[in-house]
Amino acid sequence: MLRIAIIGAGRIGHVHAATIAAHPGAQLALVCDPFGDAAENLAATYGARACKEADDVFADPQVDAVVIGSPTPLHVPHLLAAARAGKAVLCEKPIALSMEDVDAASAELEAVTTPVMFGFNRRFDPSFAAVRTAVEAGRIGPLEQLTIISRDPAAPPVEYVKVSGGIFRDMTIHDFDTARYFLGDITEVHAVGQNLDPEIAAVGDFDAAVVTLRTASGAVATIINNRHCAAGYDQRLEASGPAGALLADNIRATTVRLSNAEVTDAQEPYLDFFLERYAEAYRLELSAFIEAVESGSPVSPSITDAIEALRLAEAATESARTGAPVRLG
Amino acid sequence: MLRIAIIGAGRIGHVHAATIAAHPGAQLALVCDPFGDAAENLAATYGARACKEADDVFADPQVDAVVIGSPTPLHVPHLLAAARAGKAVLCEKPIALSMEDVDAASAELEAVTTPVMFGFNRRFDPSFAAVRTAVEAGRIGPLEQLTIISRDPAAPPVEYVKVSGGIFRDMTIHDFDTARYFLGDITEVHAVGQNLDPEIAAVGDFDAAVVTLRTASGAVATIINNRHCAAGYDQRLEASGPAGALLADNIRATTVRLSNAEVTDAQEPYLDFFLERYAEAYRLELSAFIEAVESGSPVSPSITDAIEALRLAEAATESARTGAPVRLG
Amino acid sequence: MLRIAIIGAGRIGHVHAATIAAHPGAQLALVCDPFGDAAENLAATYGARACKEADDVFADPQVDAVVIGSPTPLHVPHLLAAARAGKAVLCEKPIALSMEDVDAASAELEAVTTPVMFGFNRRFDPSFAAVRTAVEAGRIGPLEQLTIISRDPAAPPVEYVKVSGGIFRDMTIHDFDTARYFLGDITEVHAVGQNLDPEIAAVGDFDAAVVTLRTASGAVATIINNRHCAAGYDQRLEASGPAGALLADNIRATTVRLSNAEVTDAQEPYLDFFLERYAEAYRLELSAFIEAVESGSPVSPSITDAIEALRLAEAATESARTGAPVRLG
Amino acid sequence: MLRIAIIGAGRIGHVHAATIAAHPGAQLALVCDPFGDAAENLAATYGARACKEADDVFADPQVDAVVIGSPTPLHVPHLLAAARAGKAVLCEKPIALSMEDVDAASAELEAVTTPVMFGFNRRFDPSFAAVRTAVEAGRIGPLEQLTIISRDPAAPPVEYVKVSGGIFRDMTIHDFDTARYFLGDITEVHAVGQNLDPEIAAVGDFDAAVVTLRTASGAVATIINNRHCAAGYDQRLEASGPAGALLADNIRATTVRLSNAEVTDAQEPYLDFFLERYAEAYRLELSAFIEAVESGSPVSPSITDAIEALRLAEAATESARTGAPVRLG
Repeated sequence: MLRIAIIGAGRIGHVHAATIAAHPGAQLALVCDPFGDAAENLAATYGARACKEADDVFADPQVDAVVIGSPTPLHVPHLLAAARAGKAVLCEKPIALSMEDVDAASAELEAVTTPVMFGFNRRFDPSFAAVRTAVEAGRIGPLEQLTIISRDPAAPPVEYVKVSGGIFRDMTIHDFDTARYFLGDITEVHAVGQNLDPEIAAVGDFDAAVVTLRTASGAVATIINNRHCAAGYDQRLEASGPAGALLADNIRATTVRLSNAEVTDAQEPYLDFFLERYAEAYRLELSAFIEAVESGSPVSPSITDAIEALRLAEAATESARTGAPVRLG
Repeated sequence: MLRIAIIGAGRIGHVHAATIAAHPGAQLALVCDPFGDAAENLAATYGARACKEADDVFADPQVDAVVIGSPTPLHVPHLLAAARAGKAVLCEKPIALSMEDVDAASAELEAVTTPVMFGFNRRFDPSFAAVRTAVEAGRIGPLEQLTIISRDPAAPPVEYVKVSGGIFRDMTIHDFDTARYFLGDITEVHAVGQNLDPEIAAVGDFDAAVVTLRTASGAVATIINNRHCAAGYDQRLEASGPAGALLADNIRATTVRLSNAEVTDAQEPYLDFFLERYAEAYRLELSAFIEAVESGSPVSPSITDAIEALRLAEAATESARTGAPVRLG
Repeated sequence: MLRIAIIGAGRIGHVHAATIAAHPGAQLALVCDPFGDAAENLAATYGARACKEADDVFADPQVDAVVIGSPTPLHVPHLLAAARAGKAVLCEKPIALSMEDVDAASAELEAVTTPVMFGFNRRFDPSFAAVRTAVEAGRIGPLEQLTIISRDPAAPPVEYVKVSGGIFRDMTIHDFDTARYFLGDITEVHAVGQNLDPEIAAVGDFDAAVVTLRTASGAVATIINNRHCAAGYDQRLEASGPAGALLADNIRATTVRLSNAEVTDAQEPYLDFFLERYAEAYRLELSAFIEAVESGSPVSPSITDAIEALRLAEAATESARTGAPVRLG
Repeated sequence: MLRIAIIGAGRIGHVHAATIAAHPGAQLALVCDPFGDAAENLAATYGARACKEADDVFADPQVDAVVIGSPTPLHVPHLLAAARAGKAVLCEKPIALSMEDVDAASAELEAVTTPVMFGFNRRFDPSFAAVRTAVEAGRIGPLEQLTIISRDPAAPPVEYVKVSGGIFRDMTIHDFDTARYFLGDITEVHAVGQNLDPEIAAVGDFDAAVVTLRTASGAVATIINNRHCAAGYDQRLEASGPAGALLADNIRATTVRLSNAEVTDAQEPYLDFFLERYAEAYRLELSAFIEAVESGSPVSPSITDAIEALRLAEAATESARTGAPVRLG
């Protein structure tokens, strides 16, 4: 029974709390949030303890593992503190808002020996994972072209956008990880940022983007992002090779299809956002984390995966600003 | 070059005229219709001759084959006259409005030696035909259950319904032929007629029906009919066996799919009616007719097929009236 | 917090136990099975108590409600005993193996005042329920034709078939309930039984069937059943009316589609069987039961629903044997 | 009746000949090919005359219009000669192998006053055209992201690739025209060329590519090309805007779907190549040409469209070689 603490009692903290509570091999031990009420309310729901200070989590001998859902600038400090205290860590993405912050802590990050896994939930989505498994099994031959379409249902508030680090670090970073999950290391990034929404433009960010990634193998990945989508949370992926193609389509709440004088076989809008769309992925992510911690096998996605996704986000940011592709080491 | 005459310059006559004109091995020689203007207009479009009397068709030495699209009560007299004159015949369905009429002419029908093919166009629909080919090839194992859904976009005028012979002879007869095409001889018919439309009920006909057909092989066919369908001309068929199932889906004018806040992947309404839906089938039907006539191979569907479909229509009519299933020969 | 006991620690008992354990408003209090080990093992998984005798369940003051998953002949005795003890009941289908058994207990069944709900899980399937909600909301106009396709992935062992009461009581009974759920009372039943599997024929049962149901409203339902289906557990439903149609399609584990030289947009086989296909339905069924019990609102499906479904099963059995339709009250 | 000559009796010449022959308002008057047999055979099929010299076409007073299907380097000389002779022209793409050739003839091209239309057949594909019509009608709001997936079933022979002008001029040029058809003028091109096929790499060309196009409106188009595709000729297009998205899917010969133990709802491979996939587009293209010529309305796509598509192809070629995006005037 893995005793888990959660730092951050916000939206994603609630998801993890419910997932931990439902897992037969885990127990929600402690919830930490500087807003004590939030921590206490969430803790009470699952019969856990609450605290306000992250240090109380790291010092707690009744805690085996920590789920870090604190604001991004605290991810590195928190994961290092947790690791120093010998706790296993499941940390939300991104690892940091800039590579500068990562580089500043690089010696300490390299020295981490406890399991630290990053919450790139899409690796655990059953459909995306099934495509990757089939690709690895050679069902389509060598992967040649990967197309990722990822559109949010609606843009976040401008206040959030301002501190988000920009679309590439905040939104595309998931797709960068997915691209690396399928294709390994990326050698060149070209990004076009779009300013369709003047409010987001006003705070210096893009609200849509098309990114092209080259790889050492010769395969190319294309990422198409948009901060809004009328039909819901549009999350698709197509892997194409000489022997075939595999598509992971969107998910709806039911399989109902409507036919009438205007439309035929019309399905429902997509599940609205990530909590619903990736509900199963969050469950499988936690299971993978617990299993890796308990068996001592390596966690994945790792700190390195988190750093590489951030590196791609920075390269895309630069490319979108300068207009020129960015080559990577 | 097969020189073909058409009797009947109505809607279906126009389809056949266009199909003949476009066929490299056929020539539209003569159009016959008691309404001389209709015959002349249609003939003029394709550079053919026109006449008012069917006998002028049968007597014409410049005519090798006759497409019979006259009113149903004239089908048997016209096909017999054409056959006596040594013409090949492609006759529209049904062969007659009652088995009584068929039985009265049975000796003459049996004595026919020229090729007489019946216009059960669905046998030539590429999707239905592909399903049958796959079934014959054993792709799903022995056919166990055949489901035919066949709904017209809108009911015909009541005046038409009155003289149509009833839904089973007029509409379901196509599906009876399809069932026989897949399953061979039928041993028992059970039909439920529905009266959803009071105007059609008032003239003594049904406007929807569900028919169950038993076969000697043990397979069962289900036919679901309706005189109206909001989404267009609903024409589907599913063949199911122990090793799999094959579905022939509806056809739309384009492959466009719309996604928005109400619907996702919504397709267009179905092609509206038989001239559009079975346009390709009419072409292939004519080709099969010409090929059979020129090669001397047997035509199909045959007079026997036409008679058996009518026999099923009569059995269904009786079953729907009495409520009891009707056993066949 | 509703304290629930389960009678029957078999396959369905495990489903209910897991569902109860995961429900915030319920607690698994007691598991009863004549095979004491089965009861104890299941109870241990969820920290519940175990017993061998059903009477110990009814007598237990720590039990508020009973889920009855005992063999069918015990359903009526168990539900009556539970009701006499003042327990709420969620009983698996069918209510009994024959209407004779129901009639013999009819006075006692009518006198039941505690909530007794029947486990027709398909009413709670999100897709089927969404179709019904849309039908009730008038999205397709008055329901005219309902088509239910229900095929098991593989036939049960012959030993099971022998004591199952026959395909109509064991398998089709779900579809009868679904038909009543959409259409209300049925006035006539016509059934064709098929003997595709000689082993099942040898024990006097059918292994496939097509059933036609007439209703007072004039709508007709068609049920197509088969004990095997190569592609998995085939569970579809189409409701059709003058303004449109609604289809509830099959469910797959992922949304992956494969395209290669043989197939395009090929999806996975269907979820294999009812535990997987109706997992969400079992959860929603239990929630509806708990909510009804706690709020005092009527449970549904009710004892009457269970009896009427059995009545249809008997009528279908008779129709399939005699070949004649059976009229109902 | 428009009397049309065809220059070039190859594959595309055959398509145009059949289309002209089937069109009620056109007549195939003359077929010209330096291989006299090819011209004579094709002419004979449709009762037309044949010649070997293009000049005989331009000089022929019985010819109203010319379809130019000669090798690309002859397109400009042929269209100018035809125009000088007062003939209307339908010219195959691309206009030339390099902008140098176009620029050398720019004064003469600008001076052309007879109708000259270019054969970008995809503008006439019913599905692509329906998407554009819906976009123009505002169904999805302002177009934000256009995704074009265009994969050939198999690479052409290396001998063809050598003289093709490269993938961007030969294959992508269609997609460039489609992008312009939807989005108007392009301001920047970024292209990544892939070398998956060593034989094509050996002759200095790419066999796959991903191209990103920026537009003045802020919309971005992505083109994904590949010289091979296991499932057939993969031709899809998705237009996305704030109010929805429209997808034009692939086309199969039938609507048949197969379900078995491995796959469900599996469709057939796509139509194999452009003659089949765009058969209807070729018909509608010819109709549009004839209608424009006869009514005196402007032809579209125009010489300017042909030049702009070539300009994009050259920009993409440069971008793929240098790695840097190319800005356009």
